[in-house]
Amino acid sequence: MFDDKLKEECGVFGVYNNNEFDTSRLTYYGLFALQHRGQESAGIAVNNKGTILYRKEMGMVSEIFDDVVLDYLKGHSAIGHVRYSTTGESYAENAQPLVIKYTKGHMAIAHNGNITNASEIKKELEEQGTIFQTTSDTEIIAALLSRIRIKYNAIEDALNEVMRKIKGAYSLLIMTPNKLIAVRDPLGMRPLVIGKKEDSYVFSSESCAFDSLGIKFVRDVEPGEIIVVNKDNIRSIQTEVPKKSAACIFEYIYFARPDSIMDGIEVFSARYKAGIVLAKEHPVDADVVVGVPDSGLAAAHGFSDASGIKYVGGFMKNRYVGRTFIQPSQEMRELGVHMKLNPIRSQIEGKRVVMIDDSLVRGTTSKKIVNLLKEAGAKEVHVRISSPPVKYSCYFGIDTPERKNLIAGNMSIEEIRDIIGADSLGYISNEGLLSTCKNGKRDYCMACFNGKYPMDVDDKEDN
Amino acid sequence: MFDDKLKEECGVFGVYNNNEFDTSRLTYYGLFALQHRGQESAGIAVNNKGTILYRKEMGMVSEIFDDVVLDYLKGHSAIGHVRYSTTGESYAENAQPLVIKYTKGHMAIAHNGNITNASEIKKELEEQGTIFQTTSDTEIIAALLSRIRIKYNAIEDALNEVMRKIKGAYSLLIMTPNKLIAVRDPLGMRPLVIGKKEDSYVFSSESCAFDSLGIKFVRDVEPGEIIVVNKDNIRSIQTEVPKKSAACIFEYIYFARPDSIMDGIEVFSARYKAGIVLAKEHPVDADVVVGVPDSGLAAAHGFSDASGIKYVGGFMKNRYVGRTFIQPSQEMRELGVHMKLNPIRSQIEGKRVVMIDDSLVRGTTSKKIVNLLKEAGAKEVHVRISSPPVKYSCYFGIDTPERKNLIAGNMSIEEIRDIIGADSLGYISNEGLLSTCKNGKRDYCMACFNGKYPMDVDDKEDN
Amino acid sequence: MFDDKLKEECGVFGVYNNNEFDTSRLTYYGLFALQHRGQESAGIAVNNKGTILYRKEMGMVSEIFDDVVLDYLKGHSAIGHVRYSTTGESYAENAQPLVIKYTKGHMAIAHNGNITNASEIKKELEEQGTIFQTTSDTEIIAALLSRIRIKYNAIEDALNEVMRKIKGAYSLLIMTPNKLIAVRDPLGMRPLVIGKKEDSYVFSSESCAFDSLGIKFVRDVEPGEIIVVNKDNIRSIQTEVPKKSAACIFEYIYFARPDSIMDGIEVFSARYKAGIVLAKEHPVDADVVVGVPDSGLAAAHGFSDASGIKYVGGFMKNRYVGRTFIQPSQEMRELGVHMKLNPIRSQIEGKRVVMIDDSLVRGTTSKKIVNLLKEAGAKEVHVRISSPPVKYSCYFGIDTPERKNLIAGNMSIEEIRDIIGADSLGYISNEGLLSTCKNGKRDYCMACFNGKYPMDVDDKEDN
Amino acid sequence: MFDDKLKEECGVFGVYNNNEFDTSRLTYYGLFALQHRGQESAGIAVNNKGTILYRKEMGMVSEIFDDVVLDYLKGHSAIGHVRYSTTGESYAENAQPLVIKYTKGHMAIAHNGNITNASEIKKELEEQGTIFQTTSDTEIIAALLSRIRIKYNAIEDALNEVMRKIKGAYSLLIMTPNKLIAVRDPLGMRPLVIGKKEDSYVFSSESCAFDSLGIKFVRDVEPGEIIVVNKDNIRSIQTEVPKKSAACIFEYIYFARPDSIMDGIEVFSARYKAGIVLAKEHPVDADVVVGVPDSGLAAAHGFSDASGIKYVGGFMKNRYVGRTFIQPSQEMRELGVHMKLNPIRSQIEGKRVVMIDDSLVRGTTSKKIVNLLKEAGAKEVHVRISSPPVKYSCYFGIDTPERKNLIAGNMSIEEIRDIIGADSLGYISNEGLLSTCKNGKRDYCMACFNGKYPMDVDDKEDN
Repeated sequence: MFDDKLKEECGVFGVYNNNEFDTSRLTYYGLFALQHRGQESAGIAVNNKGTILYRKEMGMVSEIFDDVVLDYLKGHSAIGHVRYSTTGESYAENAQPLVIKYTKGHMAIAHNGNITNASEIKKELEEQGTIFQTTSDTEIIAALLSRIRIKYNAIEDALNEVMRKIKGAYSLLIMTPNKLIAVRDPLGMRPLVIGKKEDSYVFSSESCAFDSLGIKFVRDVEPGEIIVVNKDNIRSIQTEVPKKSAACIFEYIYFARPDSIMDGIEVFSARYKAGIVLAKEHPVDADVVVGVPDSGLAAAHGFSDASGIKYVGGFMKNRYVGRTFIQPSQEMRELGVHMKLNPIRSQIEGKRVVMIDDSLVRGTTSKKIVNLLKEAGAKEVHVRISSPPVKYSCYFGIDTPERKNLIAGNMSIEEIRDIIGADSLGYISNEGLLSTCKNGKRDYCMACFNGKYPMDVDDKEDN
Repeated sequence: MFDDKLKEECGVFGVYNNNEFDTSRLTYYGLFALQHRGQESAGIAVNNKGTILYRKEMGMVSEIFDDVVLDYLKGHSAIGHVRYSTTGESYAENAQPLVIKYTKGHMAIAHNGNITNASEIKKELEEQGTIFQTTSDTEIIAALLSRIRIKYNAIEDALNEVMRKIKGAYSLLIMTPNKLIAVRDPLGMRPLVIGKKEDSYVFSSESCAFDSLGIKFVRDVEPGEIIVVNKDNIRSIQTEVPKKSAACIFEYIYFARPDSIMDGIEVFSARYKAGIVLAKEHPVDADVVVGVPDSGLAAAHGFSDASGIKYVGGFMKNRYVGRTFIQPSQEMRELGVHMKLNPIRSQIEGKRVVMIDDSLVRGTTSKKIVNLLKEAGAKEVHVRISSPPVKYSCYFGIDTPERKNLIAGNMSIEEIRDIIGADSLGYISNEGLLSTCKNGKRDYCMACFNGKYPMDVDDKEDN
Repeated sequence: MFDDKLKEECGVFGVYNNNEFDTSRLTYYGLFALQHRGQESAGIAVNNKGTILYRKEMGMVSEIFDDVVLDYLKGHSAIGHVRYSTTGESYAENAQPLVIKYTKGHMAIAHNGNITNASEIKKELEEQGTIFQTTSDTEIIAALLSRIRIKYNAIEDALNEVMRKIKGAYSLLIMTPNKLIAVRDPLGMRPLVIGKKEDSYVFSSESCAFDSLGIKFVRDVEPGEIIVVNKDNIRSIQTEVPKKSAACIFEYIYFARPDSIMDGIEVFSARYKAGIVLAKEHPVDADVVVGVPDSGLAAAHGFSDASGIKYVGGFMKNRYVGRTFIQPSQEMRELGVHMKLNPIRSQIEGKRVVMIDDSLVRGTTSKKIVNLLKEAGAKEVHVRISSPPVKYSCYFGIDTPERKNLIAGNMSIEEIRDIIGADSLGYISNEGLLSTCKNGKRDYCMACFNGKYPMDVDDKEDN
Repeated sequence: MFDDKLKEECGVFGVYNNNEFDTSRLTYYGLFALQHRGQESAGIAVNNKGTILYRKEMGMVSEIFDDVVLDYLKGHSAIGHVRYSTTGESYAENAQPLVIKYTKGHMAIAHNGNITNASEIKKELEEQGTIFQTTSDTEIIAALLSRIRIKYNAIEDALNEVMRKIKGAYSLLIMTPNKLIAVRDPLGMRPLVIGKKEDSYVFSSESCAFDSLGIKFVRDVEPGEIIVVNKDNIRSIQTEVPKKSAACIFEYIYFARPDSIMDGIEVFSARYKAGIVLAKEHPVDADVVVGVPDSGLAAAHGFSDASGIKYVGGFMKNRYVGRTFIQPSQEMRELGVHMKLNPIRSQIEGKRVVMIDDSLVRGTTSKKIVNLLKEAGAKEVHVRISSPPVKYSCYFGIDTPERKNLIAGNMSIEEIRDIIGADSLGYISNEGLLSTCKNGKRDYCMACFNGKYPMDVDDKEDN
């Protein structure tokens, strides 16, 4: 009900251990820190002297793994994966890492992203006799890599050719009997960072996992880069694919954890700056600023600091809503039952409120929150959104509704304001948003706002 | 690890329905809103035309109940209970409501509090041949009530005598075939409020459950009051026990939800005021104020507003730490693994930080958080605690460590400051705290701070 | 569907250990051997230096206990209980052993049987203020014992008085801090045997549990006997209640395991003899004898040996029908789906078949089995039942249908034969049955056949 | 402990429905009747208008499927599979049916058997770039079929070529969008039968599933036959592979259900005849014959009838030993704990006993049973085994121990007799066994007895 958000599809974590670390537990805690990137399924595969042991299941990291399983998963390297829960059917078969045997032995692959020419490659492979057991892009990558690998001695060379064939967004971790390989797509759409702990190398979708684990952040994997770790060294291979930067800007808006630093930008800071920009672009005369927890809070701080309007803690969020929670029926909701958010009346009553949220996708949730604030006595509610209107679908690993369900794809801002019942509504501008994460290092994909996709997309219906 | 808090023992919720409400679902959502008061076990009992149907189990509300169970629990009245998880052994037998048969038929009882002369009463009853199947005070109350009931025609009269015999803190809901009865102890130590929805009456430990359910808040149950609802009316009985107000002030500091209003005071406002008082009592020259999430946030707002020092969102809290999470081993912790809290580096680095927390019990957690802030680059960390030093055990329904483990019971403030590694440490004064919830209506029990228990306590070892 | 049987209500097992046995595991295996006496719930309580630890839950013995639980249940004495699943609602609260605290400390009780004046005693206790938390007789016994105990120094003396007050069938095991006590009702209705292993004494509902555990069978507990084991010795107390023997004859017919020896009679032998008697009382000209598995097999052997008609293995029984099995719908059954029993066609086809079953309660199952045999090509099916017609309800611990559902309570044998579609039908006579277990030591209760209850029964509706 | 048996690897069941049957429930009950062929995992896949829905999991049929799942699995055709539990690791990934997408759409495959040149084919496919996600032969068949399929228009033609390439034992069910295909290997090693219900065709590993479901038995699928059912008709294709019959004779000895008829022979009858042959080949002067339940019972009947020695029910078998049962520790076993079998003393005591068992693999169990009989008072125990000495491993779908653990592969009969403690020991002869299932229609594989494998076996270590 209060969950009108775009959804990240995955997070990956991996470690190549030259020390006596407990790789499965390190990966467990790493995935745990990345749990916000996917709550549907999780998995860990370890390389136990050439044999790959693994466990993957539907559920949250803490539900799937216990001490017995983690003790079983002994190995000198490990990769792990968290996957998000779509609204539709979830298949256990799609859980990752994908563990396969091929002509060079066993291999495990974990993937965050979306291949945009997957159908075409799948068709090509099927016509050569390949069978598929899942609906995941990861299996397509594995099948393609395996077939291309025949021609090459080194997996890196095969990967190079794979990267020339596949299009889209991908951050990959590949564990072979002797290597741990990290790959980031040529546009650098999905994040991937390198860390170090003593002599071991660690990879993660986000740096927040390093902080929680006492791992030293080294740098981002660069767009189009292949990094190969083995027991002797770590090597960087710049692929031959043409590179231009198009990092997903929504990572900063909503997906990533505020304490992560991606491509040189701390997520919290980007959000805070968006609040500052918003205050300048859409000033308003009001008494208090409230952020919608949790992703609207940083921008609310920025808005308050820039506007001088007092920041208040306006909401109580019930954190006990787990996956087995029975959502209130329509009838219950009409009786006024709303479980997740409750305004703090003293902070709202009689006030002109600026309500900051990170995004507005279908608009259903914003309408409810505005209504809650009004019932709690807000005299006015001015909604400010720290991302531009979402008008276009994403084909690069984010679950967006069809365009017809994107409220900003179909209505004017004034119409949206009217529907959500706000006294005013302001979105940050595209330029304004861009300014929050400009650092000269990366360009960004803002296709969901401006429709300018950084590449041709074949599989539009695939999403 | 980051959980150095006192623990509330329970929450209760009940409804007597004159309408066509779905009482079990209403109670489910009510308990869900009270889940912060107890996560060990939960239960719902309904009165189905004189038969009491119930389900109670170890676990969270959303885990125990599903649609099948809630459909089974049909009845015109219902009571529910959430119970907290002690560090020691948890017994399914102690889950509530307690459902019994006695000479007047079936009865269900839900209890929040602690009876301080329980051992004495238990012994007395045992000497008369009573058997006990649980270790809960609730069973003692039920057994006593049943025995006393023999003499009286009306349960209210029996309750009156029971209340003369039992000492301690208690908010009770009792469901009989024809009545729903709410009782608050003569000191009003534990909260209990009345709500109304159409012709139905609802009771809850806290008003936040009413907000979430569209229920109109009516008033607090008064200390020493018995309220009896049946199909015809609602009656208030002032018991004959001497009453003086001694509401638990820790409800405002930590236990209750910030959006609840208890005895006329909104919890968030009380905490915010505590921040203001703290800023006055223990000013400091600093750059930023951070609250330890979640219970330190409101006071941090107050401190910031009173001191003019900027409030920043200083921490990321990982919310996925559920009951099945494997806590990092000592070895892992030494490697730097800390899962729950992570500082937002940009807000902390190079800053002199005021860190606000609601209480400091054993001191172990504060030490870790101070250390995290320093590692994140804080130049100074000034700890301010929005409650006075906890020096004495509670015997009224709160799980406190033994006195020897209460750091403030054994050390000077300077010693504590040294241990937790803070640059300065300030606690709010007893008077300062009291001023945050003074409204002329209630007096407060502050025994955990000042040792002045509002009654003689027999069962000191019982806790 | 193929389950038209009377149901035993419980089994008990206990050990007082003077050796280094693992009492919880011994009890686990003991209960496991008694699982046929009850599959609804099971429990084990151990006496750990005066503290009683226990675990009881809905489910089968092997489902409830694992190594972690059994390791936790350490103690020098232990009692356990299995309970059967009624067709109606099953309550976790009724699981046993019942563990209570009373004026003399902790106590655990496990009970097999039914108290026939339970309502009266319950009412009496309630009028004195007692509360009840379950619907089991065990709690009534415990409450009564506790109240009577006030007057006595020794529990044995209190038990003596309890036995003068309660009527009905009961085999009890009581574990106190220092003793293990076994009690059998004055009529000896429910079985209870004593075993010995080195210096330890063991009690069990049936001797089969001793065989499986390498325990030496000592003797039956005698009707009206109290046996007290403590660390020094074992004592027998003959209660002052008038004793006459009225052991339940249905234990031999169906409830007990064929390899058990009760009151001097091996169950298998009694069943075998019933087959011999049946062959004499109801001879028939036929080609083969088949027993309905499993309880009809022994009598089929006897019938074959006495009649000279060849015994054949006529049925395949699907043993995988567990508690989660989805029973075929009416529609499926009409399509011919029958999962439990399948005739072995080669043994049946073209033959005149004598089909031996142990009892015929509602008649529904017999009808289906006769039909299966005919479909498998039987030329004639002659049904012989190794118990007399069940015409009366049992009030002594057996779950019998209401009289109106007892086919023999309402129809003539010819009518029954017609309904089940048999070519002839013969029941063993009361005298014939009695002759199978006559040993001069015991008289038997045959009330379900002849309506002669061995005592007045107050709580007829209670069943 | 009492489980010294060879293990069948799988059972398959399928239905192509032209009627309004509930295919998932029919398959559920079908698999349930085949549960003895595999208890590790089970799965059902249905064809819902071209989309394949499925559920497969570790566990028994009745544990995996409930009404919600069966309602979800709606389709006009369905195939199901049960898989057995190896002693080593069990992988959820190996559960069947295998559901794949390939160039011609979706396909589900269920397989019973073992491909003896699997390694070679796998290597060949891997060298062409194929990846494998399981360790099952089924995936190899699917991958090979998919690759070969490219060349052919009709799947039948592709299957024909697949059958020329793969060696070994296999009964396959393949469900495509429009067809249900059944395949039996050219030697007919694993059973597969056809049934009919109204206009629908049904396939099953054994006919017992038909009996339980009211399905008419039509005939066996012939060795090397491909049967194709679609909505219009049923066609039989005789493959071009050379056929000679070599049905697995162990199906009759132990694997199959006694009520099944395979290749014209009822399993019970074959076992019964083996008892007759045994009595002639190894006569003995004794008082009683007992069969070891359940697979030794039919032969015991035969032995008794042929020898005139009385058949008695000698054992009680505890049927509650489920998968969660805690096996007695070595220490417990030394104390005499034996849970599964208990002799009926009255039938054994003082008797000279002939004990009939179906096979003797490692010898450990027989030793224990002989000992139990002696402890129960048997004067002599003469062991007769209704299969010849198992001396060679099976490579055709049966889990046999390594040769060094096959007692008859390493010892003389006299040595075995001595080890198991029997007074005499007799195995049926190869010719004797063969005579029990000779019907002119089939030849049999008896490689585990005589080492004459019906084909070259490449993957000897594979087992």
